[in-house]
Amino acid sequence: MNQQLSWTTWLAEGHVSVPVILLKHYPSFNLNEEECMLLLHLHTFIEKGNAFPTPEELSNRMTITATKCFSIIQKLITRGFLTIEETSVDGVRQENYSLFPLWKTIMDKLETDQRQTKLEDTLQSQT
Amino acid sequence: MNQQLSWTTWLAEGHVSVPVILLKHYPSFNLNEEECMLLLHLHTFIEKGNAFPTPEELSNRMTITATKCFSIIQKLITRGFLTIEETSVDGVRQENYSLFPLWKTIMDKLETDQRQTKLEDTLQSQT
Amino acid sequence: MNQQLSWTTWLAEGHVSVPVILLKHYPSFNLNEEECMLLLHLHTFIEKGNAFPTPEELSNRMTITATKCFSIIQKLITRGFLTIEETSVDGVRQENYSLFPLWKTIMDKLETDQRQTKLEDTLQSQT
Amino acid sequence: MNQQLSWTTWLAEGHVSVPVILLKHYPSFNLNEEECMLLLHLHTFIEKGNAFPTPEELSNRMTITATKCFSIIQKLITRGFLTIEETSVDGVRQENYSLFPLWKTIMDKLETDQRQTKLEDTLQSQT
Repeated sequence: MNQQLSWTTWLAEGHVSVPVILLKHYPSFNLNEEECMLLLHLHTFIEKGNAFPTPEELSNRMTITATKCFSIIQKLITRGFLTIEETSVDGVRQENYSLFPLWKTIMDKLETDQRQTKLEDTLQSQT
Repeated sequence: MNQQLSWTTWLAEGHVSVPVILLKHYPSFNLNEEECMLLLHLHTFIEKGNAFPTPEELSNRMTITATKCFSIIQKLITRGFLTIEETSVDGVRQENYSLFPLWKTIMDKLETDQRQTKLEDTLQSQT
Repeated sequence: MNQQLSWTTWLAEGHVSVPVILLKHYPSFNLNEEECMLLLHLHTFIEKGNAFPTPEELSNRMTITATKCFSIIQKLITRGFLTIEETSVDGVRQENYSLFPLWKTIMDKLETDQRQTKLEDTLQSQT
Repeated sequence: MNQQLSWTTWLAEGHVSVPVILLKHYPSFNLNEEECMLLLHLHTFIEKGNAFPTPEELSNRMTITATKCFSIIQKLITRGFLTIEETSVDGVRQENYSLFPLWKTIMDKLETDQRQTKLEDTLQSQT
């Protein structure tokens, strides 16, 4: 099949850049595949200009219901991976999801792990 | 906490570019979050130079066992989303995963969908 | 220096996915670094939601004047790497740059090159 | 033209994720398009597993000679955007380019700029 149409769509949809450290470390934050995938969907929506997708919009890209999406979002907020930020654009109050707490959590863990490793290396070299 | 170490790791690990159409359409191929995430892990391994990760290496980045990873891989091959290709590097036979069938499947579906839409538009404009 | 602010900016600005084939092949299309960089800037603006940046906006990210940006854009359009497309959003006519001709040109060249290589391989294997 | 071959190549070559802040701010570091493009080529080589491309390999992807590439590299090292790091793999000494100084320089500038802006905002709100 000639694929002119689909290739145009592929290009128009584009790509999203995902930090490899999220893909490598989510299980150590007790995130499962469903939760991590919802975070990836949020990241994609944000990167493509929709910073506050509805549970329905998320559900349309997943195999779970909007109700389940909503409950995962609440859990992610409670656990400190996600926040809702209020901004004001032209006097209109607007809400946005922010994944900054997620990246911060990963960074903090990496920092702690690497200091621990350095410390152990130092202790070992002294014995 | 100063985050010099973790930031260096973040940069060193880098990013992986994921086609948005995969994230938007995997449910319509009857792929669930676990299966799609395994495909994303394979894509990341391949992009970063390891084109034949073991089930153990995949399992280390997931919340499922190596046995489960292996069984998902077999299912993805059977369903036509994944192939194993043999190449020969310096006379040594080597196996690689290829996600080409996955991208091809998505492209074919997009093509069919869009031709259908065009056809319906044409029919509608004629009535 | 603690880098909380700059790291937040880094994350907020995000990344843009660039096809490696553009970076590998632009000189064979007689594009120089200035022209290719302008195409990368257009690609970035489009991916981040501004599909019709002004010559001034482009110039702000480059070392060349807005006049020079405008003249490069005209040249890229004449040479068939870039088009301006008209769309209508809520009844308002809108213009967008499209890089589709660029990707199409690269694809066509790759296709021709590889068919040529295949042909030569076939001819060689027959002698 | 059917584009099966070129599309396969496109996918095989993949994408490279480029930080938007580099594309937005290189002129304020007195980097021109040629220098920034060489940095992008280095970034791409590194991300794709070749962390020490030769001036010839760089030149093959640019419109400038290998000699010119070499002289730009030396200039970038002198100006503190690039370093050469020595590592040892299986007892064999190996040299790699590192773009860490570039990212660090950009981060430091962003940090300084934003503190300056915050300071000015504070001063202004007090008058």
